[in-house]
Amino acid sequence: MKFGIAIFPSKSVQDEANSFRKRYDPHYALIPPHITLKESFDADEELIEELTSELKTIANGLEPFTINVNKVSTFAPVTNTIYLKVEPIQILQDLSEELQEGKFPRKQEHTFVPHITIAQKLSHDEYSDVFGQLKMMNLQYEDTIDRFQLLYQLENGSWTVHETFVFGKE
Amino acid sequence: MKFGIAIFPSKSVQDEANSFRKRYDPHYALIPPHITLKESFDADEELIEELTSELKTIANGLEPFTINVNKVSTFAPVTNTIYLKVEPIQILQDLSEELQEGKFPRKQEHTFVPHITIAQKLSHDEYSDVFGQLKMMNLQYEDTIDRFQLLYQLENGSWTVHETFVFGKE
Repeated sequence: MKFGIAIFPSKSVQDEANSFRKRYDPHYALIPPHITLKESFDADEELIEELTSELKTIANGLEPFTINVNKVSTFAPVTNTIYLKVEPIQILQDLSEELQEGKFPRKQEHTFVPHITIAQKLSHDEYSDVFGQLKMMNLQYEDTIDRFQLLYQLENGSWTVHETFVFGKE
Repeated sequence: MKFGIAIFPSKSVQDEANSFRKRYDPHYALIPPHITLKESFDADEELIEELTSELKTIANGLEPFTINVNKVSTFAPVTNTIYLKVEPIQILQDLSEELQEGKFPRKQEHTFVPHITIAQKLSHDEYSDVFGQLKMMNLQYEDTIDRFQLLYQLENGSWTVHETFVFGKE
């Protein structure tokens, strides 16, 4: 089964992201707006039990932290994905690295860039047009993050939450 | 904000339900296949904190249980919703009642009938056609339930998981 680890920002940020995703992101219906902490990886039931216990330990050691989104950015020319740029902070970087260590499968394809995707898989012309508009926008969100989620993927490509890990809980 | 409480069955049951929902359920993209334990209710942050603590206590007191799905049924003539009928068991009935008591808002509109919706909002003709086909199917799923989820609704109607409550955990 395929699993992934992500943070869902607050409802207001999700609503805002969805207003773009609805038009520009074919994954709109597959998962709510999110910050990917660990990209899709394969795991069986046994490994997931071990990872769950690991994730609990990691979450227990964390305290809620603040993220800031101040602009729209893009991965072009690597991919033409457009995203809400989450200002990089050490805690996110550390968390992303912890999820590549120990029992966690290592499969980080790109450097970790915290972001909320709002457009992807656009044609070249669409991309230029959409990014041209979105990069002019005045954005400013501040959000408190106090949990992350372990999800699994269904056959239709959509994601279901397996478990939530709230920071600082036992 | 609107919240709801639901059980996601195992991936294989979700995949099976989605094969129907894809064609017959306009809510297909809004939430994975689920058994609703408590229908949508309004709550502010303060109430949700209280309910979260309540839900933890309830989940701690539960042990994983088995559900069985043996047939397709319908709420017609009340609504033309078609669903995978989850054989009613006391634990589900008790759980549904607990979620109407104490601090939980009471808003049970219908008698609790555990089910996984696979078709809804069909026209009368579509309904007759689809139900005619589906009720002939030979279904038999057994599934172990070991958690439920508290979800909130975004402005586009989709649902994001707020927290997972695993049975028997502290």
